[in-house]
Amino acid sequence: MVKVGIAGYGVIGQRLADGVALQKDMELVGVADVAPTLSIRALKERGMPYDLYLVDGADKAKFDELGIPVSGSFGDLISKVDIMLDAAPGGIGIKNKALYEKAGVKAVFQGGEKNDIADVFFHGYANYEAGLGADYLKLTSCNTTGLIRSVDCLDKALGGVERVAITIIRRVADPGDYHRGLTNALQMDKAPSHQAEDLMTIMPHIEATGILVHTPVTHGHIITVLVSGKDGKKITKEEALKAFEAHDRIRVVRIDDGFLGNASLFRYARDLGNPRGDMYEIALWEDSLVESGNDIMYAINIPQEAVTIPETLDAVRAAMKMQPDSKSGTAETNKYLNLGNWKK
Amino acid sequence: MVKVGIAGYGVIGQRLADGVALQKDMELVGVADVAPTLSIRALKERGMPYDLYLVDGADKAKFDELGIPVSGSFGDLISKVDIMLDAAPGGIGIKNKALYEKAGVKAVFQGGEKNDIADVFFHGYANYEAGLGADYLKLTSCNTTGLIRSVDCLDKALGGVERVAITIIRRVADPGDYHRGLTNALQMDKAPSHQAEDLMTIMPHIEATGILVHTPVTHGHIITVLVSGKDGKKITKEEALKAFEAHDRIRVVRIDDGFLGNASLFRYARDLGNPRGDMYEIALWEDSLVESGNDIMYAINIPQEAVTIPETLDAVRAAMKMQPDSKSGTAETNKYLNLGNWKK
Amino acid sequence: MVKVGIAGYGVIGQRLADGVALQKDMELVGVADVAPTLSIRALKERGMPYDLYLVDGADKAKFDELGIPVSGSFGDLISKVDIMLDAAPGGIGIKNKALYEKAGVKAVFQGGEKNDIADVFFHGYANYEAGLGADYLKLTSCNTTGLIRSVDCLDKALGGVERVAITIIRRVADPGDYHRGLTNALQMDKAPSHQAEDLMTIMPHIEATGILVHTPVTHGHIITVLVSGKDGKKITKEEALKAFEAHDRIRVVRIDDGFLGNASLFRYARDLGNPRGDMYEIALWEDSLVESGNDIMYAINIPQEAVTIPETLDAVRAAMKMQPDSKSGTAETNKYLNLGNWKK
Amino acid sequence: MVKVGIAGYGVIGQRLADGVALQKDMELVGVADVAPTLSIRALKERGMPYDLYLVDGADKAKFDELGIPVSGSFGDLISKVDIMLDAAPGGIGIKNKALYEKAGVKAVFQGGEKNDIADVFFHGYANYEAGLGADYLKLTSCNTTGLIRSVDCLDKALGGVERVAITIIRRVADPGDYHRGLTNALQMDKAPSHQAEDLMTIMPHIEATGILVHTPVTHGHIITVLVSGKDGKKITKEEALKAFEAHDRIRVVRIDDGFLGNASLFRYARDLGNPRGDMYEIALWEDSLVESGNDIMYAINIPQEAVTIPETLDAVRAAMKMQPDSKSGTAETNKYLNLGNWKK
Repeated sequence: MVKVGIAGYGVIGQRLADGVALQKDMELVGVADVAPTLSIRALKERGMPYDLYLVDGADKAKFDELGIPVSGSFGDLISKVDIMLDAAPGGIGIKNKALYEKAGVKAVFQGGEKNDIADVFFHGYANYEAGLGADYLKLTSCNTTGLIRSVDCLDKALGGVERVAITIIRRVADPGDYHRGLTNALQMDKAPSHQAEDLMTIMPHIEATGILVHTPVTHGHIITVLVSGKDGKKITKEEALKAFEAHDRIRVVRIDDGFLGNASLFRYARDLGNPRGDMYEIALWEDSLVESGNDIMYAINIPQEAVTIPETLDAVRAAMKMQPDSKSGTAETNKYLNLGNWKK
Repeated sequence: MVKVGIAGYGVIGQRLADGVALQKDMELVGVADVAPTLSIRALKERGMPYDLYLVDGADKAKFDELGIPVSGSFGDLISKVDIMLDAAPGGIGIKNKALYEKAGVKAVFQGGEKNDIADVFFHGYANYEAGLGADYLKLTSCNTTGLIRSVDCLDKALGGVERVAITIIRRVADPGDYHRGLTNALQMDKAPSHQAEDLMTIMPHIEATGILVHTPVTHGHIITVLVSGKDGKKITKEEALKAFEAHDRIRVVRIDDGFLGNASLFRYARDLGNPRGDMYEIALWEDSLVESGNDIMYAINIPQEAVTIPETLDAVRAAMKMQPDSKSGTAETNKYLNLGNWKK
Repeated sequence: MVKVGIAGYGVIGQRLADGVALQKDMELVGVADVAPTLSIRALKERGMPYDLYLVDGADKAKFDELGIPVSGSFGDLISKVDIMLDAAPGGIGIKNKALYEKAGVKAVFQGGEKNDIADVFFHGYANYEAGLGADYLKLTSCNTTGLIRSVDCLDKALGGVERVAITIIRRVADPGDYHRGLTNALQMDKAPSHQAEDLMTIMPHIEATGILVHTPVTHGHIITVLVSGKDGKKITKEEALKAFEAHDRIRVVRIDDGFLGNASLFRYARDLGNPRGDMYEIALWEDSLVESGNDIMYAINIPQEAVTIPETLDAVRAAMKMQPDSKSGTAETNKYLNLGNWKK
Repeated sequence: MVKVGIAGYGVIGQRLADGVALQKDMELVGVADVAPTLSIRALKERGMPYDLYLVDGADKAKFDELGIPVSGSFGDLISKVDIMLDAAPGGIGIKNKALYEKAGVKAVFQGGEKNDIADVFFHGYANYEAGLGADYLKLTSCNTTGLIRSVDCLDKALGGVERVAITIIRRVADPGDYHRGLTNALQMDKAPSHQAEDLMTIMPHIEATGILVHTPVTHGHIITVLVSGKDGKKITKEEALKAFEAHDRIRVVRIDDGFLGNASLFRYARDLGNPRGDMYEIALWEDSLVESGNDIMYAINIPQEAVTIPETLDAVRAAMKMQPDSKSGTAETNKYLNLGNWKK
């Protein structure tokens, strides 16, 4: 059993905790945070399914006052684990890394940190092998994670991808966010989007660029992707669809079935009874697939809160050498997260 | 064991099914619907925890094609139950009622139907006794249900309420709704709001009026309420707060604890791991309580998707004479729904 | 001719400039700002209808590069005027005041500054006389300005108002704002709202309180107001309506005429050809008027960008003793702004 | 002087009326509508700058009651003009066409009608010559009009365009719309978008496809466009930018100048003092221009309410043979609408 700790019990940290708890070959030692946030209060109301450790600077008296049991310090947590999943707010991870190094503990950082925090910029499907045995890995961000799933899928199934051009229609905040938001406005980012550049870092044989526009919604980014095959090879709608349908982390959906947009997918995940209405899979609209010359174009939905969880678990598998390659590593994650079974 | 069936497996029907399934003295026989909606597809993907019956007009071939098992017709369902919870779209309930009458089965209708569909317009706290043994009951709508909780609470605790004036800041759609919506606009309804008028029907000793404004959000209505005590008796902030804090279906929350608005409550319910991120309780902001002359004013949050579930279960208890009065009936519902335990 | 300068050419400053320019007994000397914002660029594209002065810290080279003519420094502007209208961002006004004092120039500050910046907290209808000859006045904020219009209207027409209880459904950002926003969320403020408290400062014979909720829209706040007459005297719907209809800065509107909400009013103002789609008047929905016991309740729309302009011009009239009382001062402003003529 | 009438005084009709009124070689005879909408009420409050005619089915008594002067029937209007601009709601235009034919009057229809209503599907830049002397023309829709401006610009300047792939981030409603809207949701359309197909109808030498996503905003669509040069010829960022900058109906803007998104452009148009805050030009973000292989990608903003006005005026010029070709026809429209002068 690989022993895992979580730093930061926020939007991502909570979901990592649930994901690790589902892996039968991992043990969740505990989670660490600094303040009695809503998520920590909810953890308490749920009866503390996960042990809580306090990071430096936390005011333990506040936790005591609320009757929230504390299992120890951040150092205590680190001393008990093989690997830390760091989901602290952007910029904190680099400070935490010093503690991990001192304790000789591996770590996987989330997309909010700078790329150079880690030895390997990681995606479970696209470069699992690069992470084998690595000490410090950084996950791709939510958009990049979902985007690469779809591009890697075509890359492997259709004899290679040469060029990717994306338009990211970004949800601007998560449900419950009050510290950021946009009201009746679309907002441009300077091109090229970092997601396209990150894709090139992970998949250096592809030329990628794109434009990102923020939109005032909270449930799921939508990305349109134009993909060109290697040496201009034509990609047909049919073969692309077939490849997507075979992927365990991609759900192919149709408008006529009721999947009208990102909010339908959020509703569906709630109706599935998924904790928090989360969804690990990206969705791909069959109705969006169109050919453009020899290229193929399609739209995917990225459930930003949970989409990186499977690839983060893949990262643990790579770093701890639990499985030797992408195929076996992702399969093991998928098995415990029950991914792909919806097809049955 | 009281046998219960559900007509309509949509936003409300799903939640009623979950609620009934938690009552140890009720048995959920099954749910009925007409088409393979997203919610029905999710039911199938979950492995059919509830049996599905098809209402007249359903195309069984579509269900077969999707591999969704069907347990029988709507008539079959009705023939097996003591009471139906009717959550069909507005206007269908009145047609269903004829079937219930023919089968000699009781029914509880949701707020979307006209009041005259039922013998009793019902609220678990405010008029449980009126529903004892009744054949056809209609629940108050989501806003009225939550509003009455708070007004009845003060009415009973503080020696009587005489006047209520409300402003309903209404969420205009549920998450996932594409058939209705509002974009960058507030919309006025003609006053007085029907919720104020409905309150007077249930609590005829109170004069109530109010104004409703639709807002472009999906998570929870907010209502501000001004309450005048009987014969002008002063209501202090302290005694009102004490009364609210003692209520099992009212959560008193504070801005400084992170409950900034309706979206915080939705997030909290998700973090609690509640199915679908539902919340049965209304929230009342301690920070909103202010005295106005002898009157008291406060703001409550109404989680529109789930708030009527407890009172609907109360209605089953009243109709089936499972408990003799409001106190015992609501207590039994609260026990099985685990309401009030957050205070511990 | 009273000579007027404007500090800050933003949302409010632009509208003040237009308003002053319409007063036949005032002369707009110029406007001052610090950077080539969109509004300044638009001023240039319009051919510089107003002279521009640069405040300290402005980088004149940037203006030169863009070909934007500059007429002098902030000090130059101050030296040419009788009174400054300060619409600088919150917190800057207090610094500017030192310059005004040094130059012996009067000033009117906007709602963003602290109340103690001024000798008089001012509203053209409710306390014009307090501002007569004053050196430093501060306008009420947009919500308070509109609210007081309606309350003062009833106060004067119906023999006195004793109590006011409000619910402010606040628009969270202006069109074009990217520095603040809310996405799919309602946000609570701690009660009582400052607008209620400000009302009491201006109209000390009234007890006022209320609750404010932010909503994700950009066109116009909506306030519901409950008003109690002096000594409990009943206020009927008919007499309240009659009073509102007689007011030159209140438009009485009806849902059935197409005024469905705040966005209808914005559209109407655009269709009127008003510069920027601005509206000086608040709107009051006839359909919202309801009696609650002896009290009256109604809803008003506050066009946040322009509503304070008339009262600010009233403040100039009071400070410069151009008219001796509220009646004559507001009438003169109304004449030049063409207010009240829609009734003809 | 070409005599022009307008059918439908709604969002588009009002703007057409203003546009025609600015053309020194056209005379606006009048506008026709069916009911005293907000726009008609505003016309009255403005003092009837345009004569109003009533279409069949209008209830004249309602207009009389409101004191709105009426100049005659729809037939009266048609009998006085050379050409009608039909901006009636979708589906009405085809009925009106019979009246125009009977009277021997030409007409230009808006994008809401089906393509076969007209002899020519028209764009002022891309196929002006096809409209020369035509009796019935149909304008491209707002998105297609703006899109074609940009594509035609590159097509003419850079030696030909071969392929276009677009992502339309569509605003879902206009300011003031209450009959349609989307709340916290992105909505997919089935691909390919009709705008891409319409582009191919107007510019048959180009292969175009794309995906459309609706977003809950009201100010301006944003389209990302990927353009491939003829025979794979490389299009550089520099040459594309130069071409766009030379176009009189395209404004090149930059994020650092304050043009953060569609709402900034709406604000800028308001600050310009444009009637209703309208903008005729599309905006193109210099910051969005990126090369993708030999292709070029960029983002444009489409001000949906006013963008088709110039091309509709071009259509009048073509139908009435006022100018012989695209260059002279569009130049004349631009002169009277003051387009292109911002560069000076």
